[in-house]
Amino acid sequence: MNQQVRVTFEPHGRAVFVLTGTKVIEAAGRGGLTIDTPCGGAATCGKCRVRIRGKVCAPTTEEKAILSEAELADGWRLACQSSICGECVIEVPETSLFAGRHQILQDTHTDGETDVLPAVRKQYVQLPEPSLDEDAPDLIRLQAAVGPVDAGLDVIRQLGRRLREGGFAGTAVLTDHRLIDFEAGDTSARCHGAAFDIGTTTVVGSLLDLVTGQEVAIDSAMNSQVRFGDDVLSRIELGSTPAGLEELRTEILKTVGTILGRLCEQAHVGREEIYEIAFAGNTTMQHLLCGIDPAQLGQVPFVPAYGRSLTVSAADLGIAIHPRAQAVVFPVIGGFVGGDTVAGMVSTRLMEGNGPDLMVDIGTNGEIVLALEDKLLASSTAAGPAFEGARISCGMRATAGAIEKVVFDEDDVNYSVIGHVDPAGLCGSGLVDLTAELLRSGLVNSVGRMLPPDELPEGIREALRNRVILDGGQPAFVLAKPKGDSQGVVLRQKDIRELQLATGAIRAGITILLKQAGIAVGDLKRVLIAGGFGSFIRRNNAQRIGLLPPGIDHSRIHYVGNASLAGAKWALVSTNARNRGEHLARQARHVELSRDMEFQMEFAEAMIFPDK
Amino acid sequence: MNQQVRVTFEPHGRAVFVLTGTKVIEAAGRGGLTIDTPCGGAATCGKCRVRIRGKVCAPTTEEKAILSEAELADGWRLACQSSICGECVIEVPETSLFAGRHQILQDTHTDGETDVLPAVRKQYVQLPEPSLDEDAPDLIRLQAAVGPVDAGLDVIRQLGRRLREGGFAGTAVLTDHRLIDFEAGDTSARCHGAAFDIGTTTVVGSLLDLVTGQEVAIDSAMNSQVRFGDDVLSRIELGSTPAGLEELRTEILKTVGTILGRLCEQAHVGREEIYEIAFAGNTTMQHLLCGIDPAQLGQVPFVPAYGRSLTVSAADLGIAIHPRAQAVVFPVIGGFVGGDTVAGMVSTRLMEGNGPDLMVDIGTNGEIVLALEDKLLASSTAAGPAFEGARISCGMRATAGAIEKVVFDEDDVNYSVIGHVDPAGLCGSGLVDLTAELLRSGLVNSVGRMLPPDELPEGIREALRNRVILDGGQPAFVLAKPKGDSQGVVLRQKDIRELQLATGAIRAGITILLKQAGIAVGDLKRVLIAGGFGSFIRRNNAQRIGLLPPGIDHSRIHYVGNASLAGAKWALVSTNARNRGEHLARQARHVELSRDMEFQMEFAEAMIFPDK
Repeated sequence: MNQQVRVTFEPHGRAVFVLTGTKVIEAAGRGGLTIDTPCGGAATCGKCRVRIRGKVCAPTTEEKAILSEAELADGWRLACQSSICGECVIEVPETSLFAGRHQILQDTHTDGETDVLPAVRKQYVQLPEPSLDEDAPDLIRLQAAVGPVDAGLDVIRQLGRRLREGGFAGTAVLTDHRLIDFEAGDTSARCHGAAFDIGTTTVVGSLLDLVTGQEVAIDSAMNSQVRFGDDVLSRIELGSTPAGLEELRTEILKTVGTILGRLCEQAHVGREEIYEIAFAGNTTMQHLLCGIDPAQLGQVPFVPAYGRSLTVSAADLGIAIHPRAQAVVFPVIGGFVGGDTVAGMVSTRLMEGNGPDLMVDIGTNGEIVLALEDKLLASSTAAGPAFEGARISCGMRATAGAIEKVVFDEDDVNYSVIGHVDPAGLCGSGLVDLTAELLRSGLVNSVGRMLPPDELPEGIREALRNRVILDGGQPAFVLAKPKGDSQGVVLRQKDIRELQLATGAIRAGITILLKQAGIAVGDLKRVLIAGGFGSFIRRNNAQRIGLLPPGIDHSRIHYVGNASLAGAKWALVSTNARNRGEHLARQARHVELSRDMEFQMEFAEAMIFPDK
Repeated sequence: MNQQVRVTFEPHGRAVFVLTGTKVIEAAGRGGLTIDTPCGGAATCGKCRVRIRGKVCAPTTEEKAILSEAELADGWRLACQSSICGECVIEVPETSLFAGRHQILQDTHTDGETDVLPAVRKQYVQLPEPSLDEDAPDLIRLQAAVGPVDAGLDVIRQLGRRLREGGFAGTAVLTDHRLIDFEAGDTSARCHGAAFDIGTTTVVGSLLDLVTGQEVAIDSAMNSQVRFGDDVLSRIELGSTPAGLEELRTEILKTVGTILGRLCEQAHVGREEIYEIAFAGNTTMQHLLCGIDPAQLGQVPFVPAYGRSLTVSAADLGIAIHPRAQAVVFPVIGGFVGGDTVAGMVSTRLMEGNGPDLMVDIGTNGEIVLALEDKLLASSTAAGPAFEGARISCGMRATAGAIEKVVFDEDDVNYSVIGHVDPAGLCGSGLVDLTAELLRSGLVNSVGRMLPPDELPEGIREALRNRVILDGGQPAFVLAKPKGDSQGVVLRQKDIRELQLATGAIRAGITILLKQAGIAVGDLKRVLIAGGFGSFIRRNNAQRIGLLPPGIDHSRIHYVGNASLAGAKWALVSTNARNRGEHLARQARHVELSRDMEFQMEFAEAMIFPDK
């Protein structure tokens, strides 16, 4: 059985525990690193190269074709091919990352505008001391050095003393054109920002060094609002009363606070050294974070309170970082196309001349964005929680005990379980794998019907045939047999129906957007799959069950990981990126799928599995 | 003896109590109305016409020369000539006011830029209701109607509910480009601002209707900080400790709060209907109001904490008006040339093509500004408190019992006392009058020596001669004899010396500025006398004692009253005026008089009274 081992990524210094056999690309994703695979994991482009020290698997044929013998001997491997064999350290070159720091820090647009321009900057100054001949006010003296910045009362109240205590030298801390502090001595090397992706279930935070642009810590936690219900609608309902809203706001602040504490601890950074914080989340999460009544998000026509990004005082929001830090909350497009989608649009560089691009964030709420040269369509579709393991009889989240990968080989059924324990259920990626394999084997037909034992065709292998049972009169597939405390893992007919609803909703959404834009699947240059779930499904299986449209080459499908967090980070490091987000959000046309006459028909059609 | 009577000014509706015999122009000044007298009160220009109903004095010869019989019969008089005979109502046409509302509201600059443009504006909107076809966020829906305004969390939190309760209609309240409220119904006719002049001794507040530009209430009170010392330096000393600063801040907020309460009561306006507040005061008062340590203002080189105007939340300042109202605090030029001077520069329209102009604010600290076509010089001089009656043996403030006017005629010495009571002392204007009369009569010589009884020349009238006594071996002049409880009012040699110091400081300052600019007194187009005290001194007497330079025609001397308050009001009504203040303050060169080698010599010279 697979073992859980420690993998450390350099130069990022991040460590994760994964099962042996896990693909390197997947392990990197768990560590917050999205490795680029332009060839779609076909081992043809060689872009995903990493260097493994410690326990290294033997190279595959594909790796041998791409990498030289010297490289292989030196530990170089392809992240899309190589698997984790044991404890190791993996060096990930900047050039192997997708839309990562490398691009943020070094890309320069054709107009010469650079992207490295945080809103927060520090400037150490040594000012001339005042005299009767040169008696300019303190703030004007400082402004002569740092430009015509605004300052609030708090800063002005302290400025005179700080200037004199420091011999008229010190460090000005500026956010946009505002002086938020004047610190003793030269602190210009220490300047941090925090970026958050606020999910309905999971909250991920990243701490950035705004001087170098480097991520210095990453951490995540369950959104503690889940104790009030795990779906968005239940939050909207509770948040529609003043007391409920306050309760939910307090919970999310608690989660953010916990993560901030851990980030600071990891990186040895003081909370007051965080001068800006950026939040991207779905529209409801952003409303709750801001203490805005979400009631309208639960009623037709699902109107958000605000659209453009909000720049508010972090303290007003209730977040304890630098007392005059500002918080930036991403712009939203619609009630169910939120700041997380906009952040993803920023980090995947939609509308920058490479399109047509399709971005799909697969989750309970599937957001779909289609970017053409001259237009941007955005919509959302209620996929339901099947991909997160909910409403599936043996479904579960991707935590310990979940079967996350299923492969049928000639002998038997193989699966891997998260956490080196007995299998307890099936998470989203396992569900996709299993369904794809059942379709390939002919145990499920194209309309999603599971064949009962007595209808199984002749050619079915014994190993599979033995697993098909009747359960309450309905056919079912036994993936893992009961063992000890484990009740086993069984896929039932109704589970397939749930998956069909989920994939159908997303596929229908994709189809409608393509139709409205007047383009075909084949015209797409990139299909970008975002979201934590999306990173770990296998492309061929996703296409086999019809989640992703057929007719598009694997090489055009890119997993972009947590594109929302990446966008939030980008907004901290670059005001240009922030402005692009604002622009993209307002440029986007919000397509309400239910208003499209063809949506129901497309939905029904998309529920039918592709022929092969 | 003169009686105190009620005089009401229309259309302003303001009432004051003054002694009969008071000039109309002076009574108007007490009511906050500054009447323009381009001819310097010589009754030649006819600009100061007013219409008196009720008790009307007979017209003077000068009035008969300017006004027609029909006009005189209709009650028209010249404010510079006519006196109050009894209770009356005086109609003051807009055209008779100096730099008043008339100009604020109707002047258009040559470039077509109008001055009527408050930062605060209201806009009633009726928005289209959202639908699935048109599901823009609430704030964007509103922004489509009012422009791309920012909004804080508080407003966004309420917006959705207010929009829906009001059927998507309501009134947006905007300050600059910020949405500070969205009110139910159409409240666009009710929009107010408050302007304050914060003096070391007196605080004056004005409530403005920002829709019409009209002043709807005016009120004043003693700055309750005076209980900690009545001069600026004692405030600076106390304010240099954290506890003392907080005490002084609390006091000034108390005074402002009291005045605001009375303004609202007078005009039937709710405090939350005041959306902006502007403050002009000397540099120390502005620092204390903002809670900024004034210690540096008490030490060479007297450096203020800030220079440019501050725009802060009124709530942060501690002022209870609309919760999201902003407070504008005037820019300052130097430690002793503050926002009050800048506000005066705005309201007197310095640097707008009419110069060279000299503005003098006469008080304990005399501010002197010289405006030429291409430069602006500003300085301050420590005149001492003589003009406010302090350090004068029988001196007192201009309150009940103060002799405020002195005239020697052929028979005797005449004086008027404020408040219809026995004389208790001498206030600043009485001191100037008396000294001028003593100079004219030869009882005081040009170096300021009071002649003792045995040195009095032959021609001195008996009525005067009898009043000259020896007091502790020094000559003195008995203005009012002891009577009942009153101890009488006596002017002593040392009082003359105090006055010489005060006038010398101001005159020397004027001389230095003129020298630095390379112009002569005769080149000045206007001499503008600001400040409460300045409004009521008689021009000829001010020149006789050398307070104002000789060699300038009376017609060029204008009393501009509380120019600081006028500037603060103007800043509320016009963002252009506000910007002009910012520009003027930074354009000004701060002249530190003590750095000019010639200042001490000029000072000594200026203490000698002019020959005639």
